[in-house]
Amino acid sequence: MTTMVATGSKAYTELVGLVREAAVLASVGNLVSWDQETMMPPKGAGLRAEQLSMLSGMVHEKSTHPRVGELLGECEEDRDLLGDPAHAANVREMRREYDLATRLPLELVKALAECASKGMEAWKGARENNDFKAFLPALELTVELNKRKSECLGQGKAADIYDPLLDTFEPGMTAARTAAIFKPLREFTVGLVDRVQGCGVKVDRGPAVIEFPIAQQKSFVEKVAARIGFDFDAGRMDESAHPFCESLNSLDIRMTNRYRADGWADAISSGTHESGHGIYEQGLLDEHFGTPLGMYISLGIHESQSRMYENLVARSAPFWEWGFGMAKEHFGTDFGGASALDVYKALNIIEPSFIRVEADEVTYNLHIMLRFDMERAMLNGELACKDLPGEWNKRMKSDFGLDVCEDRVGCLQDVHWSMGAMGYFPTYTFGNLYSAQFWEAMGRDIPDRDAQMARGEFGAVLKWLREKIHVHGRMWSAEDLCERVTGEPLKSDALMRHLDAKAKAVYGM
Amino acid sequence: MTTMVATGSKAYTELVGLVREAAVLASVGNLVSWDQETMMPPKGAGLRAEQLSMLSGMVHEKSTHPRVGELLGECEEDRDLLGDPAHAANVREMRREYDLATRLPLELVKALAECASKGMEAWKGARENNDFKAFLPALELTVELNKRKSECLGQGKAADIYDPLLDTFEPGMTAARTAAIFKPLREFTVGLVDRVQGCGVKVDRGPAVIEFPIAQQKSFVEKVAARIGFDFDAGRMDESAHPFCESLNSLDIRMTNRYRADGWADAISSGTHESGHGIYEQGLLDEHFGTPLGMYISLGIHESQSRMYENLVARSAPFWEWGFGMAKEHFGTDFGGASALDVYKALNIIEPSFIRVEADEVTYNLHIMLRFDMERAMLNGELACKDLPGEWNKRMKSDFGLDVCEDRVGCLQDVHWSMGAMGYFPTYTFGNLYSAQFWEAMGRDIPDRDAQMARGEFGAVLKWLREKIHVHGRMWSAEDLCERVTGEPLKSDALMRHLDAKAKAVYGM
Repeated sequence: MTTMVATGSKAYTELVGLVREAAVLASVGNLVSWDQETMMPPKGAGLRAEQLSMLSGMVHEKSTHPRVGELLGECEEDRDLLGDPAHAANVREMRREYDLATRLPLELVKALAECASKGMEAWKGARENNDFKAFLPALELTVELNKRKSECLGQGKAADIYDPLLDTFEPGMTAARTAAIFKPLREFTVGLVDRVQGCGVKVDRGPAVIEFPIAQQKSFVEKVAARIGFDFDAGRMDESAHPFCESLNSLDIRMTNRYRADGWADAISSGTHESGHGIYEQGLLDEHFGTPLGMYISLGIHESQSRMYENLVARSAPFWEWGFGMAKEHFGTDFGGASALDVYKALNIIEPSFIRVEADEVTYNLHIMLRFDMERAMLNGELACKDLPGEWNKRMKSDFGLDVCEDRVGCLQDVHWSMGAMGYFPTYTFGNLYSAQFWEAMGRDIPDRDAQMARGEFGAVLKWLREKIHVHGRMWSAEDLCERVTGEPLKSDALMRHLDAKAKAVYGM
Repeated sequence: MTTMVATGSKAYTELVGLVREAAVLASVGNLVSWDQETMMPPKGAGLRAEQLSMLSGMVHEKSTHPRVGELLGECEEDRDLLGDPAHAANVREMRREYDLATRLPLELVKALAECASKGMEAWKGARENNDFKAFLPALELTVELNKRKSECLGQGKAADIYDPLLDTFEPGMTAARTAAIFKPLREFTVGLVDRVQGCGVKVDRGPAVIEFPIAQQKSFVEKVAARIGFDFDAGRMDESAHPFCESLNSLDIRMTNRYRADGWADAISSGTHESGHGIYEQGLLDEHFGTPLGMYISLGIHESQSRMYENLVARSAPFWEWGFGMAKEHFGTDFGGASALDVYKALNIIEPSFIRVEADEVTYNLHIMLRFDMERAMLNGELACKDLPGEWNKRMKSDFGLDVCEDRVGCLQDVHWSMGAMGYFPTYTFGNLYSAQFWEAMGRDIPDRDAQMARGEFGAVLKWLREKIHVHGRMWSAEDLCERVTGEPLKSDALMRHLDAKAKAVYGM
């Protein structure tokens, strides 16, 4: 018996050593990617592609090595080992990763990579020329390959072809459950937007679009990021075309942001958004680096942390009670006599628009639900790819009241499908849903949270997130975590309450 | 016969593929190192050490793979292949690299690495506390391990124990030849310093130490770097504690520089120095990336390019005829009424001093020759490590006329020995020697070079260096290149002529 334990432990140790090696190499790849977006001189692109392809090949080789499979098998037989919940969680999640990585045949992996690379090119041209037909063949191939991917991953046992794809981004989530959660949210949102548009109140965007020097905006965003909890001794914030957050490990987090002369408010939104991602990654435990216990749970949970800091913290009235004084001092202006409330309102204008990434907090989810329905229908065969623009535009009319005149501001606007990513979009709204549900639970634990934020104190919020969510890594699934933390499975109620309250506060309805 | 050629070519292609793979991976390591010195947040140090050690292990594994040895053997038998001078040079130099990498037993490699890591720690403490005894054991071990290294590399056939060590940095160079070249230089320099000190002229350093904002200094250095030929679309210049130049490939060169409020002149010196390194690396041909034909020849030749831009270009009177106007405009000042000649003189003060890295162009080589003699004597057993401080100080007195009161400004000042690097120091002076000899040859080809530089035109200098030196990679050895380009083997005459002329110009002797 003792020998069995020792063997099991030995296998576990070797297994952890192997996945950790792959993680160190993957962290090099992440640094190399970060550099590509932030520092690399233009002529470096050729070598960079070679470096990244070599590294990803090596990481894949290490992660899918047969020895990993053997050791997993040994660990899964070891009852003593699995008696420890942390070991059990690590083994469970390493199995999941291993299966995902080994179930796709190499020719499909290659076909997907080629489709992504060519699809991206086709999409860029199509968007530029507003020519959906030029993207259609790539889209059709993407749908076809994603169907095959789904079959391989689901091993023909999935209830819905969408499920195995969604599962790669949001483990355990299904299309049916997504549809059920989205249904009330969509009805509510369409109604709320109608009410806002009908209420006759017009909010002044002025304070949000005052021009400030970029360098001043950068230092302002960094001050705010540090204040809400990002540790700049364990990370950086640089500039890139599209903001992102890349983790090497929890002690070296590379975030980026972008700046426009009249975009200080946008810079704060994207800066606090990325800080939310960065704060989550910094909260993972270094001792678990490379193993699932040291990894984020799902894209939805990751996004819940970024949306929480972006929307529930940095778009809140209490935040600006404190932050506006700081902003006035930092930028050396009184914002033309605006009040903290004026700034709060300017940051929370609700207005249907064509472009997802520019959407407000309320209408954003309509964009996501549209995409979820479209990609699901394409995968199910209910929607032919060629009919996508028509369906898209019909939905934009019914849900947003907008007429899409050009596909480049319609179904050609997003990069995701061109990269082969289907089943990804819903995770954005899961982020919003989780963030609101977590935020309500946190509010019960910290009754004076608003007062704290109005004094510029964010320590209690951070501590709560660390203890309830961050330090646990992949100990539980996203929905299990949600139940543990909020006492309920994921629902749309909290988000609807939040958005309703915000609309009332901003539009006085 | 045809079959033979095909086989040979096939082996060569496979060989190039393998070394190229190692080079791509090594370029990742270079980026990771660069990031460590420039961008990495403090807490990232732990993972960084793991990343670098994993990468260097992988590069070593690829470079020393038995298949590389087999293929080299095949290529060396292939007369048709070797009939092509470029292929022959590549095979010759790949053999050299392979032998160097495979001749050291693993336990010696590990011992050297451990000695370097511990030696560095010991040296830091010893220097801080001015306590040579605390460094002595590490120094003794370094000498011992370098002796063994020399025996392994030289396979017991070297004429001088110093030769195999020097050869790793300056292929083909020997201690005897170095001593012969250095002898007249040392006599000349000691005499020149005496003459300068006796001439009664005192040059005003004032214009070189005016304070300017760091951001202004940075943009000034970058302007100059771009003007003399560094392509910022294929590289960057960032800040680090010690300036360096790291190459990923010829299209992505990462240089750094350092700045002090009153150090604009130092920033230009170090900035043009690193630019010289960077310009050389940018001049290597990308089509040969990863193979010797795409690599720098030797540390001496590399240093000749940096010294040329630092000393022969950016410390010249013609350069400042143009550059001073640019500097006045850039910094928005008239430098207190100083003239271009005043600046030129302030940048060329000749004065014995204790610290090598702060030395002027003339006395610098005395520092190097001292170190060459000391490390050679320690390796030969003519100097016991414990007697180093006494010998060092005696030499500082005889050559510089200086009394060393503290070892931290004497034999404890440099990092090299603590890192295990013996045989490295002479390459700095080889750089100066080659630069002067190349510069004279270039002057014969470009008679109006001074006039061009005085107009801020540096294209002809760059073109000459590209054609004569850069594009050839390791086609020839350093000394063969020198003979081809200058018509003579390496000698100290050109450097002595240059230094003599400069002393005359600055001190009016």
